[in-house]
Amino acid sequence: MEALSSNQVTVMFLSLAVLLCVARVLGELALRLRQPSVLGELLAGVILGPTILGRIAPNINTALFPLHGVNAIALESISTLAIGLFLLVAGMEVDLSTAWKQGKIGGKIGLTSIVIPFSVAVVAAFLIPEVLGRKPDSDPLVFALFFAIAISISALPIIARTLIDMGLYRSDLGMVVISAAILNDIIGWVVFAVILGFISGSSGAGADIAVTLAMTLIFIVGMLTFGRYLIHRVLPFVQAYTRWPSGELSFALILGLLGAAFTELIGIHAILGAFIVGVAIGDSSHLRERSRVIIGDFVSFIFAPVFFASIGLKVDFFAHFDPVLVLVVLLLACVCKLIGGTLGARWGGMGRDESLAVGFAMVSVGAMGIIVGIIALNAGIIDERLFIALVIMAMVTSMISGPFMRLILHKEKKCLLHEVLSSKLFVQDLTAVTRRQVIRELTLAVSEVGDIDAAALETAVWEREVLMSTGVGNRVALPHARIVGLKQVWVVVGMSCRGIDFDAPDGKLANLIFLVLTPAEDPGIQLDIVAQIARLFRTQRCVDAALRTENFTDFLALLHTEA
Amino acid sequence: MEALSSNQVTVMFLSLAVLLCVARVLGELALRLRQPSVLGELLAGVILGPTILGRIAPNINTALFPLHGVNAIALESISTLAIGLFLLVAGMEVDLSTAWKQGKIGGKIGLTSIVIPFSVAVVAAFLIPEVLGRKPDSDPLVFALFFAIAISISALPIIARTLIDMGLYRSDLGMVVISAAILNDIIGWVVFAVILGFISGSSGAGADIAVTLAMTLIFIVGMLTFGRYLIHRVLPFVQAYTRWPSGELSFALILGLLGAAFTELIGIHAILGAFIVGVAIGDSSHLRERSRVIIGDFVSFIFAPVFFASIGLKVDFFAHFDPVLVLVVLLLACVCKLIGGTLGARWGGMGRDESLAVGFAMVSVGAMGIIVGIIALNAGIIDERLFIALVIMAMVTSMISGPFMRLILHKEKKCLLHEVLSSKLFVQDLTAVTRRQVIRELTLAVSEVGDIDAAALETAVWEREVLMSTGVGNRVALPHARIVGLKQVWVVVGMSCRGIDFDAPDGKLANLIFLVLTPAEDPGIQLDIVAQIARLFRTQRCVDAALRTENFTDFLALLHTEA
Repeated sequence: MEALSSNQVTVMFLSLAVLLCVARVLGELALRLRQPSVLGELLAGVILGPTILGRIAPNINTALFPLHGVNAIALESISTLAIGLFLLVAGMEVDLSTAWKQGKIGGKIGLTSIVIPFSVAVVAAFLIPEVLGRKPDSDPLVFALFFAIAISISALPIIARTLIDMGLYRSDLGMVVISAAILNDIIGWVVFAVILGFISGSSGAGADIAVTLAMTLIFIVGMLTFGRYLIHRVLPFVQAYTRWPSGELSFALILGLLGAAFTELIGIHAILGAFIVGVAIGDSSHLRERSRVIIGDFVSFIFAPVFFASIGLKVDFFAHFDPVLVLVVLLLACVCKLIGGTLGARWGGMGRDESLAVGFAMVSVGAMGIIVGIIALNAGIIDERLFIALVIMAMVTSMISGPFMRLILHKEKKCLLHEVLSSKLFVQDLTAVTRRQVIRELTLAVSEVGDIDAAALETAVWEREVLMSTGVGNRVALPHARIVGLKQVWVVVGMSCRGIDFDAPDGKLANLIFLVLTPAEDPGIQLDIVAQIARLFRTQRCVDAALRTENFTDFLALLHTEA
Repeated sequence: MEALSSNQVTVMFLSLAVLLCVARVLGELALRLRQPSVLGELLAGVILGPTILGRIAPNINTALFPLHGVNAIALESISTLAIGLFLLVAGMEVDLSTAWKQGKIGGKIGLTSIVIPFSVAVVAAFLIPEVLGRKPDSDPLVFALFFAIAISISALPIIARTLIDMGLYRSDLGMVVISAAILNDIIGWVVFAVILGFISGSSGAGADIAVTLAMTLIFIVGMLTFGRYLIHRVLPFVQAYTRWPSGELSFALILGLLGAAFTELIGIHAILGAFIVGVAIGDSSHLRERSRVIIGDFVSFIFAPVFFASIGLKVDFFAHFDPVLVLVVLLLACVCKLIGGTLGARWGGMGRDESLAVGFAMVSVGAMGIIVGIIALNAGIIDERLFIALVIMAMVTSMISGPFMRLILHKEKKCLLHEVLSSKLFVQDLTAVTRRQVIRELTLAVSEVGDIDAAALETAVWEREVLMSTGVGNRVALPHARIVGLKQVWVVVGMSCRGIDFDAPDGKLANLIFLVLTPAEDPGIQLDIVAQIARLFRTQRCVDAALRTENFTDFLALLHTEA
């Protein structure tokens, strides 16, 4: 076998490290701005690729990410593997039973949210092919179908994340949206597969197309029925007779790789096979949480960033940026998907506001649109201009989807404990000895940082405390008050090594004290914050760990990793 | 960037699936035969490579695993990445504080177990180069050093696994052996790096070698002191300010990739950098268990099998098999390492038997020897004959190490619950209503399967039961007895949906009953089995899950995945 030269090995490790590093840093930044991380990951590729690094330091760009030769093949193989595994995980996240439960309304939304954008896009592709940047030599039908699918597919992971952030994931509305997105995903990928069958078959006879389509259909139906059943039956044997968890892990991955190889072999893209196998595996109730976590985390946080960043390496986003095209594609996608989703929800009998919210949920195209786009670009069906327009459309739709839903449903983002904490409100060595003194010391911290009258705060908290003491046991106390006119949530963390008597039911002194001040105008938010603290510190182990932290960063790290 | 053709993508996914599948199946078989899994993984490559598949079906062999072209590069890049990550994980498993604690004796053993085999091997390489298969054109010194290091390195993961299996890992003896192996590993890899510096420098001037060696030394010392400290300080920030666990995961992997790139760049092999970075990261007490598990499991069970299997694809093991060479290398390694380890232990003041056991522990060469071998083969320093001899030596030493230790220390393998269970001793619907009836029903099952007198068993268990009832609470009962003349351990699982009164301290009826019969001659084994059952079923959740299982396989799967 060809061994890589030392130089090639260096470049491979270095380019992967740089790609992953920039992708993860920008991905984290995107998350901090409450955007999907794929946005940052994609941007990493744009920065490291021909668009920016290629302009500033072309030598470094071509040395790290050559377009030809061994290292180009190495990176391409790794990102091909990455996208296959990413679709396997995306499939594993599809919960077919949820889709069934809300099947009726979800089905209607899933259908309209794909049919309406699809039809409009097909018509548009035939009416204004020049505006959309069809290559003169590409097949009009293939182009139209591809463009349509890129616009009508939805981003299940991003939709799910938005719903979780709004606390709506387990609600009826949430389940309807998720089931619609699942249906949309499955229909979308199947239609996509059919289109790919057209392309690979178009050079040959019509019989070839028929064979490809028939095999695709058999594969999908077979995997989702018989294959799914077989996997469910075989999994306990794998768990019982192989070393845990290595057997189950490799079982899932081997099936995913085989599915990918099979669909690629019959002329459909590998990702469809990985996705369908993922759905079949993920549906089994025998699959253990640990395997889901290991595969899911490693693929989502390591492989996926490498793949999305590598997309930006292939295209010069400045040279091929066409503002008119971007605007047309974006408008077309937003309007059609919004109408599609909303109409489906109305058809299913939902109210006007809720339907509109569902419409906005379905607008999000996200990573899936990008994947369709890169495949079309590689297959030579679309040019760089349209590819870039699709990428921007996919990103923008994912960015606006959540905020609009929140606006319509009057839902605030859930207030997260670790977002309201700050190092200035972290008092590690309380000097206070009594309950009253502790409350004074902690309210003083808020009044200094927030420029609020200390006496008023202290009085409010103390009045509440006298009513009923706030020692919750397990060495934790939660003094709190709702304050009229307060602009934001304040949480102060205080630690006392000698312990303060907060009259806890278990009789223990409190060493860890959280002062929670919330605006009186939003009564729900207090419960939210208190519940988060109680959940985190219900175990002795966690309280001990918190009291052992040396500084605010350690404390925040504990909160993050235990949440 | 070069896109892979559809055919190349198919071959890539298919070859990875086949390689992983065969490697994992044979790896599981090896584990079942109480051998290290790397044995099976390596064999997978031999079967799929030129040695066997290449002889039976050369077309399939070259189609799946071509030796040149895009797919060869793809597989080679993925297995290069795999070995880098494997060494990162191997480094993360090194526990420096353990090494320090037992540092004095461990240091002596670590030293002698590397110095003695190393010296003898160097002398042998100069005395009988023809027997050892030195290539006529290769540098005698480089050859001798390489050969010596391949023989003197030890296999920390396999040694640790053997000690765990014998229940000796946490004992003084175990910690001494582990600290010696850690020292051996670190010295081994550093010397190895130095030798590689010789080779890469040998074409240039002497100054180049000096620079390489100086940079290597600075890297290792710097990483293990300042780098280790810095990582320990930075980790809480990563945890506090990035999304959990993606931030920590990518932090560890990016550092590993950078370390690999750096050492490869300065003329040392990439794996040294990955290993040293792994040691530095793994040493931080801030690194969370979840990150260790995700990286460790994914790399050990997915990447490592692919790498070890890919080794067998490169060489024809039949064509280059030289029995004399294999025997010489094997004898040299066994004798020298045994003497090295034993002398070190004696020097450290250990007893004769214990010292001999330590010697046998250090004999195991395992995966590390194979890695050194493949690098030497790729670098053209050794030929296929010696490579195969090294691989066989590495495997055989790993196979004999454990059994000989057990023999010397009179330690049986720990009796594992899931190994003594069987579907014939699984009574899902007990008809019994009383304690006495249950005991009769369960002992009857043993007497039928084992052809033992039922009445004697029943009497023994009942006598014990009358002495003190064996209901342990949480709906579990553990009737048991030590039986004189019993040949093996018998455990029968019985389930009763109505529940049996075993007079448990929590007053609950027992639904899950384990009958434990052990040989009277081995009093410790009963406690062992009972402790395993008690540990497994201490939670309500686990008892519920066990009672919900539909058949023996499901039950065994639960045991495996909860253990």
